[in-house]
Amino acid sequence: MTSGNFFQPLDSGTVPRFAGIPTFMRLPQAEPEEVDIALIGVPFDGGTTNRPGARHGPRELRNQSSLVRRVHHVTGISPFDLVRVADCGDVATNPFDLDDSLKRISDFYARVKKAGAVPLTAGGDHLISLPILRGLASDGPLGMIHFDAHTDTYDSFFGTSRYNHGTPFRRAIEEGLLDPKRVVQIGLRGAISDASNYDWAKEQGIRLVFIEELTERGVASVMDEAKKIVGAKPIYVSFDIDVIDPSFAPGTGTPEIGGVTTREAQALVRALSGLKISGADLVEVSPPFDQGGITAITGATMMFELLCVLAEGKAKR
Amino acid sequence: MTSGNFFQPLDSGTVPRFAGIPTFMRLPQAEPEEVDIALIGVPFDGGTTNRPGARHGPRELRNQSSLVRRVHHVTGISPFDLVRVADCGDVATNPFDLDDSLKRISDFYARVKKAGAVPLTAGGDHLISLPILRGLASDGPLGMIHFDAHTDTYDSFFGTSRYNHGTPFRRAIEEGLLDPKRVVQIGLRGAISDASNYDWAKEQGIRLVFIEELTERGVASVMDEAKKIVGAKPIYVSFDIDVIDPSFAPGTGTPEIGGVTTREAQALVRALSGLKISGADLVEVSPPFDQGGITAITGATMMFELLCVLAEGKAKR
Amino acid sequence: MTSGNFFQPLDSGTVPRFAGIPTFMRLPQAEPEEVDIALIGVPFDGGTTNRPGARHGPRELRNQSSLVRRVHHVTGISPFDLVRVADCGDVATNPFDLDDSLKRISDFYARVKKAGAVPLTAGGDHLISLPILRGLASDGPLGMIHFDAHTDTYDSFFGTSRYNHGTPFRRAIEEGLLDPKRVVQIGLRGAISDASNYDWAKEQGIRLVFIEELTERGVASVMDEAKKIVGAKPIYVSFDIDVIDPSFAPGTGTPEIGGVTTREAQALVRALSGLKISGADLVEVSPPFDQGGITAITGATMMFELLCVLAEGKAKR
Amino acid sequence: MTSGNFFQPLDSGTVPRFAGIPTFMRLPQAEPEEVDIALIGVPFDGGTTNRPGARHGPRELRNQSSLVRRVHHVTGISPFDLVRVADCGDVATNPFDLDDSLKRISDFYARVKKAGAVPLTAGGDHLISLPILRGLASDGPLGMIHFDAHTDTYDSFFGTSRYNHGTPFRRAIEEGLLDPKRVVQIGLRGAISDASNYDWAKEQGIRLVFIEELTERGVASVMDEAKKIVGAKPIYVSFDIDVIDPSFAPGTGTPEIGGVTTREAQALVRALSGLKISGADLVEVSPPFDQGGITAITGATMMFELLCVLAEGKAKR
Amino acid sequence: MTSGNFFQPLDSGTVPRFAGIPTFMRLPQAEPEEVDIALIGVPFDGGTTNRPGARHGPRELRNQSSLVRRVHHVTGISPFDLVRVADCGDVATNPFDLDDSLKRISDFYARVKKAGAVPLTAGGDHLISLPILRGLASDGPLGMIHFDAHTDTYDSFFGTSRYNHGTPFRRAIEEGLLDPKRVVQIGLRGAISDASNYDWAKEQGIRLVFIEELTERGVASVMDEAKKIVGAKPIYVSFDIDVIDPSFAPGTGTPEIGGVTTREAQALVRALSGLKISGADLVEVSPPFDQGGITAITGATMMFELLCVLAEGKAKR
Amino acid sequence: MTSGNFFQPLDSGTVPRFAGIPTFMRLPQAEPEEVDIALIGVPFDGGTTNRPGARHGPRELRNQSSLVRRVHHVTGISPFDLVRVADCGDVATNPFDLDDSLKRISDFYARVKKAGAVPLTAGGDHLISLPILRGLASDGPLGMIHFDAHTDTYDSFFGTSRYNHGTPFRRAIEEGLLDPKRVVQIGLRGAISDASNYDWAKEQGIRLVFIEELTERGVASVMDEAKKIVGAKPIYVSFDIDVIDPSFAPGTGTPEIGGVTTREAQALVRALSGLKISGADLVEVSPPFDQGGITAITGATMMFELLCVLAEGKAKR
Repeated sequence: MTSGNFFQPLDSGTVPRFAGIPTFMRLPQAEPEEVDIALIGVPFDGGTTNRPGARHGPRELRNQSSLVRRVHHVTGISPFDLVRVADCGDVATNPFDLDDSLKRISDFYARVKKAGAVPLTAGGDHLISLPILRGLASDGPLGMIHFDAHTDTYDSFFGTSRYNHGTPFRRAIEEGLLDPKRVVQIGLRGAISDASNYDWAKEQGIRLVFIEELTERGVASVMDEAKKIVGAKPIYVSFDIDVIDPSFAPGTGTPEIGGVTTREAQALVRALSGLKISGADLVEVSPPFDQGGITAITGATMMFELLCVLAEGKAKR
Repeated sequence: MTSGNFFQPLDSGTVPRFAGIPTFMRLPQAEPEEVDIALIGVPFDGGTTNRPGARHGPRELRNQSSLVRRVHHVTGISPFDLVRVADCGDVATNPFDLDDSLKRISDFYARVKKAGAVPLTAGGDHLISLPILRGLASDGPLGMIHFDAHTDTYDSFFGTSRYNHGTPFRRAIEEGLLDPKRVVQIGLRGAISDASNYDWAKEQGIRLVFIEELTERGVASVMDEAKKIVGAKPIYVSFDIDVIDPSFAPGTGTPEIGGVTTREAQALVRALSGLKISGADLVEVSPPFDQGGITAITGATMMFELLCVLAEGKAKR
Repeated sequence: MTSGNFFQPLDSGTVPRFAGIPTFMRLPQAEPEEVDIALIGVPFDGGTTNRPGARHGPRELRNQSSLVRRVHHVTGISPFDLVRVADCGDVATNPFDLDDSLKRISDFYARVKKAGAVPLTAGGDHLISLPILRGLASDGPLGMIHFDAHTDTYDSFFGTSRYNHGTPFRRAIEEGLLDPKRVVQIGLRGAISDASNYDWAKEQGIRLVFIEELTERGVASVMDEAKKIVGAKPIYVSFDIDVIDPSFAPGTGTPEIGGVTTREAQALVRALSGLKISGADLVEVSPPFDQGGITAITGATMMFELLCVLAEGKAKR
Repeated sequence: MTSGNFFQPLDSGTVPRFAGIPTFMRLPQAEPEEVDIALIGVPFDGGTTNRPGARHGPRELRNQSSLVRRVHHVTGISPFDLVRVADCGDVATNPFDLDDSLKRISDFYARVKKAGAVPLTAGGDHLISLPILRGLASDGPLGMIHFDAHTDTYDSFFGTSRYNHGTPFRRAIEEGLLDPKRVVQIGLRGAISDASNYDWAKEQGIRLVFIEELTERGVASVMDEAKKIVGAKPIYVSFDIDVIDPSFAPGTGTPEIGGVTTREAQALVRALSGLKISGADLVEVSPPFDQGGITAITGATMMFELLCVLAEGKAKR
Repeated sequence: MTSGNFFQPLDSGTVPRFAGIPTFMRLPQAEPEEVDIALIGVPFDGGTTNRPGARHGPRELRNQSSLVRRVHHVTGISPFDLVRVADCGDVATNPFDLDDSLKRISDFYARVKKAGAVPLTAGGDHLISLPILRGLASDGPLGMIHFDAHTDTYDSFFGTSRYNHGTPFRRAIEEGLLDPKRVVQIGLRGAISDASNYDWAKEQGIRLVFIEELTERGVASVMDEAKKIVGAKPIYVSFDIDVIDPSFAPGTGTPEIGGVTTREAQALVRALSGLKISGADLVEVSPPFDQGGITAITGATMMFELLCVLAEGKAKR
Repeated sequence: MTSGNFFQPLDSGTVPRFAGIPTFMRLPQAEPEEVDIALIGVPFDGGTTNRPGARHGPRELRNQSSLVRRVHHVTGISPFDLVRVADCGDVATNPFDLDDSLKRISDFYARVKKAGAVPLTAGGDHLISLPILRGLASDGPLGMIHFDAHTDTYDSFFGTSRYNHGTPFRRAIEEGLLDPKRVVQIGLRGAISDASNYDWAKEQGIRLVFIEELTERGVASVMDEAKKIVGAKPIYVSFDIDVIDPSFAPGTGTPEIGGVTTREAQALVRALSGLKISGADLVEVSPPFDQGGITAITGATMMFELLCVLAEGKAKR
């Protein structure tokens, strides 16, 4: 299947990068039913414990994605020549109603799944991964490769709050959306609130890769293992921008020093090649805390890296 | 009643303004039961329609309030010599649960009222005025002088969301916390979503003073009328930082150009002298959208202006 | 003529202001032939003498125009109910070729004129007004009300450069696009390079209103005179954001202190009511020099003020 | 006396404003002995009570003064055609030794006075006015018109520190450098540390003009009185950037809301025309707290306003 | 010894991180006599050669330390369960009197030492390490592991200024506070003023580890050697934030490119485990030059790393 | 040849770094004919495809170069003791006329070459390398070591624009200014517009070193090969700041994540030692997109690294 002429980014040799209404990667707008890969924004930060602002993430990721070009310089993948990709707009969330927002999101992703499109999402805080998984995992639990400084498997905050950006994957496992034995979390670091914080994740069988292990073993070794763990069955990929060090990505809700470099981040994502990916997200870009758009530039570039892997996989299927 | 030596700001001739743990106005910390006027933070922005961040307001208002001095240069009021004032800390809100947060806030203010202290609150978005009024208006509806670019008397957003920073005073009137005939809103401006937006407020008998009227008549004339309207009975004073022009106060959720100057804002608040004020708030300072702390400096100075009026009134009673 | 349901901004009570792909005022995209008023971006700053960046103006004006609402709070004008308005996209300029860019712009505006639409343009530096006038003034010279700190009637820079943002209106008069006897420039100020700088403009019969005169006489008196000067025949309105003081609009190429306030700016534009306006622009917003988006918020709000006047006039015709 | 061709700013029609090594107003560098008016930097902030950074003031004022042009648009004064003006460099202060720095500064200004040049100084914090006056007032006490939010006539801080930016004019009066009966302070405002703070100044006979009086009476009335008070004998002019409201000049050590506008500031300085001015300074620009250079642009423009008055007066003598 | 319930950070699952008055790590306030480890601020930058602002360091480090959690994710150390830790406030320095400030600081640290508490200090510029050492080294010279881009062993600046942030460790060695044979400096880099700049340090026997050596050998090898050099006797640890690359920590007085990464910095500090540490500091965080608080976040996290090592050591003794 | 006393930086132990008019590295100003190495600014950004602002580069590089010291801490090179170096000012470009600017630049560099001075240039965008090479390569094609994220060997943009910052080295090879067999490009990365983008460069024989190869092989191995390729004949060195990762250098026109670290950048430049370098440039620093001056600090430090290599080579000849 080829993408034809319609689903192409604006040509920067004709329309300058600073011109035009900023869709994702300067792509046309379309409905999920029309595409192979759907770029979707989920502007919601109602799950944020500390620094808000990720609701402004999709807007600024679109803005900075004008810098994205067409062909990957290492792999040679040209996603727009392999599949149909478009900007499918934002899910209209409700900033005052967490439950309503979760429902709107999961409904939208159920529709995307039904349409046969693979979603690549721009968040939004990390809670949005839960309703996305609810929409996508209707055929059984998915595996997951999860890049993050945090496990996001807390149980609750403030006594009763079980749905926030520290809990999505605990909920997802409890709801049978993820198979914890096929979940790998990479880049973990930072002090924890309680010595037992990692216990639940370990008990479920999640593979936790701390930054210290990643530093020592290197990207290739860790990713080889990760790919073996998740295997050939469908997985979800969740990329929290805070896995990247705050020197590269300061605009995020919960920065942790000592993170992965962008070179490592790119290598981590490129290593996803060959996996069967049902969807991916890039979350926690918070423009009010950004500096000169650098976090959004980083995020938009990582979305392109993810897109190349998704397009390659989708084209093969 | 005198404040004695305890409830005094740190002396800037001994401890530099940049030193020390930043309480409001470098005051000691105390419980509401120990003071005449309680400075309280309500770090909550769960009612924000667009740009979040007011949850960080109390922290930054404390930080910049280090610049506040002791004696008003025009009125000669020295609040710390008239009454006992202290930093009574923050209400511990729940960022994921709007209803829970409203309850925590109203409970705290009921306690403040019971203690006989007059609260001066640093927000937080404007929704917090509703639970504050719930805590304070147990003896019957209050009047209100309300400085704002917006009436905040919308009915709902997103279909079902009746509690957000666009609705607090509609709810307060519906709940009998405010007497609309004794409510004056000053500084209104900005395009509206629907031509009927002001109808409800007018039907209730609220006096709406748009910026154009304020510009034409001047502060003194408008405030004379406002004071007649609210009369001698207890009132609440709510000061939304967005009544001030964004050139002076850019760090706010819903900026509207063409606002009042800080000179006008100071004159507006000084004119409150003589009224019976049960409580006051300064809301909608959003540090992530601020520039060099200028909004927080403005907000902290306006809190001092409010404090002088509150202290003078409290000392007389 | 009514606009029907299509040419309406997104409803902020359904889709939050931070969501969605940012068109001007969250309007639909359309061709000039389909609308009464065309919102157009001209991202070009090749005429800038000192601080560049206005090429990024249309993008950021679109972004911040999400804050714009539907109905004017003073005049009650609801432009989207009076006429068909849409975002007609950007003219694709060529940043390396000034002449080519001028041609692309004038061609586009000739098409807009032919379509019968009134253009409201977001710049771009002030040179763009020249090719816009070339496109619009095919039926004879227009009058102009021009808000600016500078006359923009220099002859040349660097010896041979006759086309830049200091010269557009000299060229326009030389080319017969403007009738200098029907041109009024308001808000002029700032030191000049040579004592004779204003001589040419005066000799042509342009009415120069310096900020000092505006301060002394007030907006109403100055605008009454201006309207008499331009009369009932068609005019162009050019609004350089630098007419506004840099405290309100720092993000511009040539800031001059001591400018008009936003309250005055709004009153100046509202006073245009009743004139026959063939087109208008808002230029010189330079996002790289902006602070927290405040210049773009100011610019987007002034575009709404201009739109209301244009819509009222267009609806009458 | 004419300035000849040497003491001229770079021509912006030949060398763009962004090019070249930034001297004050793009003037040549020279020694005080060669000029009529000496532009001098005093990069010192060792007298700052709270927010430091004014040591970086001269550098940034030079940088932004590239925007200054040649002829005043209201008065028509062209200073570079009236007198010889140059950038005479910075006094080499010692950031670790307040006494040593004071001596270096007063020595330099004694030399300037001996050379017959009138100094226009860019600070540095306000303490520098004291050693400048020591250098200039060798023929007897001067009068002074002083624009500031603060009187700077405190006695001491931290018990023993009598030399800081809150005390220069108390010391200057005690040392006989200023005649307090011929001192006018304009723009005063802000809360004070103690109700008696203004007593000493009043006892000396200083005329204090608070912002409220200035607002009520207007610039012309206040300046008429000020000029009568200082009379025909030599005066010094000290302009603290914090007299201007922080919306126009946020980059300063002790911002106070409710200040003068830049329009008022320009009118205040223009009204100095006709006085016998022995020297002037513009102080307290603190670049680390500035936003986008706006404070330095304001300061550099005010230096040009001061220069015009100085040049006119010097040319007449 | 256990810390009991009192000396615990606020629970972020009850009080959100953005709420409350910002003490260091949200700990209670206490006197040095009440604790095992005293967190102390020294807001002083009177020793700064170029960019000031470190006086604001303790305030902003407190602010950003709200992000710090309770348990180290690698070592498992939970300092608040091992020892009593509290915020012991700031030393009240005198910004106009360097000598007075040095005395106030050394007096305070002598008291801390007498109380038996181990101080962990937030600066301030690096000069503060000298009076801290004067307070702590009363029992004989200490060893030191010193992380810095600079040796800080200059003799003097500006001829006579022997006490500034370039000289503390020369003075400390001259005064017998440090044993140069047991001093290791790690991370040195950047051009020098004179080829002989390192001679004095080398002659004293200080071990200088340049960044190039650190890069080549790695953290483990360098720290093994460092620990052998300082041995089992008491040492001081001084951490200048400028040892870290400015991409991670731009807000400092003397940035030098090519510095250590935060991952390396964390590994360097973790390797201090097992040493006998009498005190530690983290200095040269200058908020006015910071970008979005990232330097303070980095600094606060490094304070937690230091605290874990100090707590482990203190608990063993 | 020695530099004597004249061509020395200001002594920072006498004149603080924040004082004085900012020339490059605080050096004296001189003509190219008077020096061995000429520091030159070329403030031009008319070749920029997307984010402008490099015209402000030389000004800000001068400003931040005040931090540069005298002696290299690794190599021990003291350039100011080896050769005569001075600030030779800026080429006066014409921002409205690309062709005129190219001519002004090439004329100036022809003069520099004739004078026998080696130019070290601060840009400006990368197009300036073309006219520099036109001025320098009059004796035949040069080799080049080129550090950049991009090859800058595109053919044209917008159809007809053959001269912009994406094309200089294609033009230079076509014009015989560079010998492509002796050109090495290091640090390449980022998506490309078309799969054939690198074909032309490869066909010419340019050696392309992508960041992935540099990461794998290391600086030493790559530079050994590069030095073999360029050999003993004269070369040009072009350093685009965007070869460095945007975390270190955000202020540039076309940032690409995943770049070289400053440690690597310093090692790359130090490895140039021994080559015969006819000139060097550092381009694409764009201050309006910088954050706190960090890009300019990085750029100024890299200029010092380049200067050391140039001085060493020049002194030997």
